[in-house]
Amino acid sequence: MQGGGQGPLSYLRRSHGGEVVVRLKNGIELVGRLTSFDDMMNIVLEDAKERDLRTKEIVRSVGTLFIRGNNVLFITLEE
Amino acid sequence: MQGGGQGPLSYLRRSHGGEVVVRLKNGIELVGRLTSFDDMMNIVLEDAKERDLRTKEIVRSVGTLFIRGNNVLFITLEE
Amino acid sequence: MQGGGQGPLSYLRRSHGGEVVVRLKNGIELVGRLTSFDDMMNIVLEDAKERDLRTKEIVRSVGTLFIRGNNVLFITLEE
Amino acid sequence: MQGGGQGPLSYLRRSHGGEVVVRLKNGIELVGRLTSFDDMMNIVLEDAKERDLRTKEIVRSVGTLFIRGNNVLFITLEE
Amino acid sequence: MQGGGQGPLSYLRRSHGGEVVVRLKNGIELVGRLTSFDDMMNIVLEDAKERDLRTKEIVRSVGTLFIRGNNVLFITLEE
Amino acid sequence: MQGGGQGPLSYLRRSHGGEVVVRLKNGIELVGRLTSFDDMMNIVLEDAKERDLRTKEIVRSVGTLFIRGNNVLFITLEE
Amino acid sequence: MQGGGQGPLSYLRRSHGGEVVVRLKNGIELVGRLTSFDDMMNIVLEDAKERDLRTKEIVRSVGTLFIRGNNVLFITLEE
Repeated sequence: MQGGGQGPLSYLRRSHGGEVVVRLKNGIELVGRLTSFDDMMNIVLEDAKERDLRTKEIVRSVGTLFIRGNNVLFITLEE
Repeated sequence: MQGGGQGPLSYLRRSHGGEVVVRLKNGIELVGRLTSFDDMMNIVLEDAKERDLRTKEIVRSVGTLFIRGNNVLFITLEE
Repeated sequence: MQGGGQGPLSYLRRSHGGEVVVRLKNGIELVGRLTSFDDMMNIVLEDAKERDLRTKEIVRSVGTLFIRGNNVLFITLEE
Repeated sequence: MQGGGQGPLSYLRRSHGGEVVVRLKNGIELVGRLTSFDDMMNIVLEDAKERDLRTKEIVRSVGTLFIRGNNVLFITLEE
Repeated sequence: MQGGGQGPLSYLRRSHGGEVVVRLKNGIELVGRLTSFDDMMNIVLEDAKERDLRTKEIVRSVGTLFIRGNNVLFITLEE
Repeated sequence: MQGGGQGPLSYLRRSHGGEVVVRLKNGIELVGRLTSFDDMMNIVLEDAKERDLRTKEIVRSVGTLFIRGNNVLFITLEE
Repeated sequence: MQGGGQGPLSYLRRSHGGEVVVRLKNGIELVGRLTSFDDMMNIVLEDAKERDLRTKEIVRSVGTLFIRGNNVLFITLEE
């Protein structure tokens, strides 16, 4: 389960280029195209949008976003 | 107790593919099939659902979920 | 005092298989049989029960529990 | 995705010399020219300005600013 | 000042077997016999008692206690 | 951008001996002469003064100050 | 600036045996004779006293004190 092909990061890898939802520890929810990430969970999202946690409505567009990994709570790969 | 076969991670390994409940530090409780994890407790849950901490009712489905390990409080392997 | 036989972890080792009380940083108190632990204080408790911090009454059973070490405040080895 | 040219840091590198918006964990938002950064996300911004999170109005100029990386929430590379 | 004999840990070593007061970050104050500790400040106290921060009255006995080091604020070696 | 001469720390180095403003995570703002620092952002300020975050008035003088790096939010090199 | 003789720790070294004021992250202020410290900022103070942050009055004597380094905010070397 911890090998290269089966570890948690391999699931992120499969979502490369697809839309994901990144929930941050402080409750902010960001939707965007997963363009890059590393082992620390530093993430680059393109066409990123902040959305309301309850209504799921887009609050504003934030373009290309670099997220520092230690702020990530979880990432929804397919809803 | 700290060898490969007897350490805490070995208990997670035995639950591979089974349903577990992941409680996060911020109080969120997630139920799902344990599909992957690593030493940092990064976890992938499939068919993940968020449930109410008290009533245990499903609040919403979140699909395939990547959880960053440092947010994990504890994992219930068998209820 | 820091050798293998005398360090703090050696006290945990002696409690292997016995009942311990794990207090988490967030105030949750868990009682259970100490089945496994590692250097990070990742812990597996069997027959785990959550109990009220004041009354010491059992609030609910949580079965086999994997606790991520960084959430541990202290562990009572013998009351 | 984790190679030198494609990792998240490579996106920061492309923004070198351009204007970025740095959101800190404590909610402060800083706009400025990205002059330097390292792996820890330590960042130097020149002509830095603090702006209001909602109205986006400039609250005050803070000149050349060294930001300690662990405070960074996310960085907007292009709005 | 950072040699084996003169570093801060050497002061803990001298208190081995004696009664110390451990103040935790969350304000809990524990008195007990210092039986073991390591570089991380993991500590084992025997005959441990929780006492009131203001009145210094014993609130309850907690027996043999393993404290995870990262929760320690300070340790009073001699009052 | 991450080489010795161009990294963020090189900007701190240029401010050596000059007056800087150090904002701590807890909101305290300290002004003083930057006398020493290291990779962890441990900092020594001489003729240090605590000032009010809003009015910028000096609240009190604190002399020579050693600041533990992990508390630093950002450092204003030139206002 | 990061050499042995000029780094921030060298300033602590010069204060060895002298009275310093240690401000902790949680706002506690401790005055005492700096007897020992290490790279983590673990500190031993002798004749330590807790004092009121505003009035600077001594609240109580705490004798010989071992402070875990990660709780230190800053240290006033000369007031």
